[in-house]
Amino acid sequence: MEKPRSWRLGDLAANLQVQLRGDPDYQVVGLHTLREAGPLHVSFLANPRYQEALASTRAGAVLLRPEAAQDFAGNCLITSDPYLAYARASRWFEPVSQAGAGVHATAVVHESVEVPADASIGPMVVVGAGVSLGPGCIVEAGSIIGEECTLGEGCHVFPRVTLYPRCRLGKRVRVHAGAVIGADGFGFAPTRQGWERVSQLGAVDIGDDCDIGANTTIDRGALGDTVLEQGVIVDNQVQIAHNVIIGAHSAIAACVGISGSSRLGKRCVLAGGVGLVGHIELADDVHITGMSMVTKSILKAGSYSSGTALEATRDWKRTAVRLKHLESMQQRIAVLESMMSTTVHEPPA
Amino acid sequence: MEKPRSWRLGDLAANLQVQLRGDPDYQVVGLHTLREAGPLHVSFLANPRYQEALASTRAGAVLLRPEAAQDFAGNCLITSDPYLAYARASRWFEPVSQAGAGVHATAVVHESVEVPADASIGPMVVVGAGVSLGPGCIVEAGSIIGEECTLGEGCHVFPRVTLYPRCRLGKRVRVHAGAVIGADGFGFAPTRQGWERVSQLGAVDIGDDCDIGANTTIDRGALGDTVLEQGVIVDNQVQIAHNVIIGAHSAIAACVGISGSSRLGKRCVLAGGVGLVGHIELADDVHITGMSMVTKSILKAGSYSSGTALEATRDWKRTAVRLKHLESMQQRIAVLESMMSTTVHEPPA
Amino acid sequence: MEKPRSWRLGDLAANLQVQLRGDPDYQVVGLHTLREAGPLHVSFLANPRYQEALASTRAGAVLLRPEAAQDFAGNCLITSDPYLAYARASRWFEPVSQAGAGVHATAVVHESVEVPADASIGPMVVVGAGVSLGPGCIVEAGSIIGEECTLGEGCHVFPRVTLYPRCRLGKRVRVHAGAVIGADGFGFAPTRQGWERVSQLGAVDIGDDCDIGANTTIDRGALGDTVLEQGVIVDNQVQIAHNVIIGAHSAIAACVGISGSSRLGKRCVLAGGVGLVGHIELADDVHITGMSMVTKSILKAGSYSSGTALEATRDWKRTAVRLKHLESMQQRIAVLESMMSTTVHEPPA
Repeated sequence: MEKPRSWRLGDLAANLQVQLRGDPDYQVVGLHTLREAGPLHVSFLANPRYQEALASTRAGAVLLRPEAAQDFAGNCLITSDPYLAYARASRWFEPVSQAGAGVHATAVVHESVEVPADASIGPMVVVGAGVSLGPGCIVEAGSIIGEECTLGEGCHVFPRVTLYPRCRLGKRVRVHAGAVIGADGFGFAPTRQGWERVSQLGAVDIGDDCDIGANTTIDRGALGDTVLEQGVIVDNQVQIAHNVIIGAHSAIAACVGISGSSRLGKRCVLAGGVGLVGHIELADDVHITGMSMVTKSILKAGSYSSGTALEATRDWKRTAVRLKHLESMQQRIAVLESMMSTTVHEPPA
Repeated sequence: MEKPRSWRLGDLAANLQVQLRGDPDYQVVGLHTLREAGPLHVSFLANPRYQEALASTRAGAVLLRPEAAQDFAGNCLITSDPYLAYARASRWFEPVSQAGAGVHATAVVHESVEVPADASIGPMVVVGAGVSLGPGCIVEAGSIIGEECTLGEGCHVFPRVTLYPRCRLGKRVRVHAGAVIGADGFGFAPTRQGWERVSQLGAVDIGDDCDIGANTTIDRGALGDTVLEQGVIVDNQVQIAHNVIIGAHSAIAACVGISGSSRLGKRCVLAGGVGLVGHIELADDVHITGMSMVTKSILKAGSYSSGTALEATRDWKRTAVRLKHLESMQQRIAVLESMMSTTVHEPPA
Repeated sequence: MEKPRSWRLGDLAANLQVQLRGDPDYQVVGLHTLREAGPLHVSFLANPRYQEALASTRAGAVLLRPEAAQDFAGNCLITSDPYLAYARASRWFEPVSQAGAGVHATAVVHESVEVPADASIGPMVVVGAGVSLGPGCIVEAGSIIGEECTLGEGCHVFPRVTLYPRCRLGKRVRVHAGAVIGADGFGFAPTRQGWERVSQLGAVDIGDDCDIGANTTIDRGALGDTVLEQGVIVDNQVQIAHNVIIGAHSAIAACVGISGSSRLGKRCVLAGGVGLVGHIELADDVHITGMSMVTKSILKAGSYSSGTALEATRDWKRTAVRLKHLESMQQRIAVLESMMSTTVHEPPA
């Protein structure tokens, strides 16, 4: 679909498969929040906490649930899932890059590589020997695609990405700037003279429709591969160690670290800053809240947490000290209990 | 000001606006710590813990407070804020890069871009269509400046930085190597088939005099912009999510993660490794100590913390178990209290 | 040693200096785990938890301890340290890059730099004025080597690495993609008008045989240098601040952050996500478990930890609240104790 400069609400409603209540010929040119939208914007109400903003919005139209439509006199785009409708609409308002198909004159593409006619290889890109590029692939400026990597149809590699040799991206995988896919796993054998490096002979295998954030690192396997199954979304600055396996449709928020050989089930959600030790398993549908430390396998779906609540630093220092008194507190209670059992159950002499 | 190869103490004192006690014609060529300085170095005493190093320093001159000058027989540069004077002096001793103005032959600069005569565009740099570069901008090797970005006067972009399209840097902004400004925010709508991506239609707006560390990532907004107000300093490996707003002159130490739509006041300080959940607010002048987790808004200035103190691992394992006994401890105390109220207030039968 | 396409077990055993029990003419072509190995693979048994996989492995030969060899009928490569033997063998099975010696036509190497005949400088590499390259150095695509850096013999710089000016790598140092060595330390003096930057006049000095992970950052010193002694191994996404000193043969796992001027002894091990405040010291042989926060110097070898154990989020919320009751619990125990001393030691009136 070509992206028009403006949209008729009637066309937008038809494309989103939502119900329009209002003027089908009304024209909009963009999306914005309820607070910042003007008459040429479509907005949306998904989170009830923003309900009050609906009354005062200047938006030309609003995506909302049927019950919320009663409170709004303007043009309504009615749907049971306004956030999803907004997500879909957002794709149509995304600016189109001016970079077209073809190989930039400064790119270095090995002679063995066949570049599809509709692929786009940006300036300063390096594509190594034996690389396979699917139709419609975009590789932006400064990215390095190592020897014998495979990129499926419609992959989008943003600027300054590194793929080490022999890694594989499925179809429609997006990899953001600065990400490093396939660097060596952290494997060293201790010796009396120091650390002896273990060559990392595996690779990285990323499934269809995965999304990899900026400056994220996913190490190659020591022997087998590090694997992301289809539809996994990974935020920025995430570290995924060698031989980790992440189940389909899991979501990994920023700054998470997953140690070697750990295995996540399907649809797991790790919030920001979570850490997992190595060699553990998470069942399907396990959610871990932010900055929690996971040191054991979790065999049952559900939400898990660790850490302590924020306090004024003054109070926190006292709490931190008291934690070391837990043992003595337990002992003092036990002494009291034993004394009580004496005084209560045995009559005094 | 041209950088001389050596400095007369008299000139140095005049430029720093500090008081010289000693020989104005004494020549120095560099700065060093009290312990490592030699006769050709200026040193400084700011932190009282280094007081003892003053007695044995070989430094040719020392920046120090009036009261400390009494304990030092050598050349003194006397000021109420020696650390600030050292900061200013350090700028004059910084080596000058040999890279001059002009566009390197290997850079790819879109024909629509006007490069100021005193700007420096390094090797392998890519500057997209519609980019605006202020006077004196330096863009070092391998950096990628996306379409329609704006760089104010005197910006310094170090090597291998990525700016995604339509981001804005104010004046004198410095961005260190590997930083990624304007990658997609982590926005996905859940559906039965998996995650549906939300296009990130906003940008990143960085104020005058901000300093961005190496490999830091600042995501573009979903609808509005992600904003750093003027004078914000950000260390390495920091993650700032979409639509975050950081108040002027805040300081964000390394490895911090700030989740989407959170808003910091002015002069906030987040120590290393701090994490913030999304959609919260911090008042002006809030300080968070290292590795703390912030899960709620903080409406009052002050210092806040979370986490537990370090113990020997053997003891820590016991403490971790005892934490799960807190409920039973409370119950046992309550039982004792109810028994005591029996034995104390009611005479035994 | 040239890498053959296949190995005779007899030759492999001789090169690894292990004992062969089986057919010396048996040919193998690769390494794999016990579970995934086929008849052409060598595997290994180092961790007893994988003992059961030995019975069913299809591996053509297995590296194992003498006692384990009794349980395996196939070809055995017997050694007291199978993991170390595997580490050594892994090096011989590593694929060889097709990049040969020489300077790629697109690299920009300053005329002052002498490139050894056996060195390899990849596409889009930039090497600044006054850089010294040792024999056999490999600098891969897109890396930027700043002015006056020194790389010792046999260094391997992977793609898209940045070395800021005047940093030094010893011999055989490996630096993975996206790493940034020598960016400015985070030094700013507070003033009433905001933060005043302190120029970072030191550099980074990395010893022989160090290994630096992908997207790791090591800042240059403020005055003296940031130092990694020989044989230090550093994983991905690690942040090492200015003037840190790391003792020889220490191991720093992913996502660790070490604040300025802290000093680690020899053979320290920091597990993933650990954070250290600045200006502290760790003795030799200190181990810190994952995600622990180190706020004070540790003067004695041993293992140390902080943090709380993972719980179901529902339970964790209660624990977090109870932690704030520790003070009242202590007071309640004290009251009970004082009452008990009354009732027990003093006869009732």
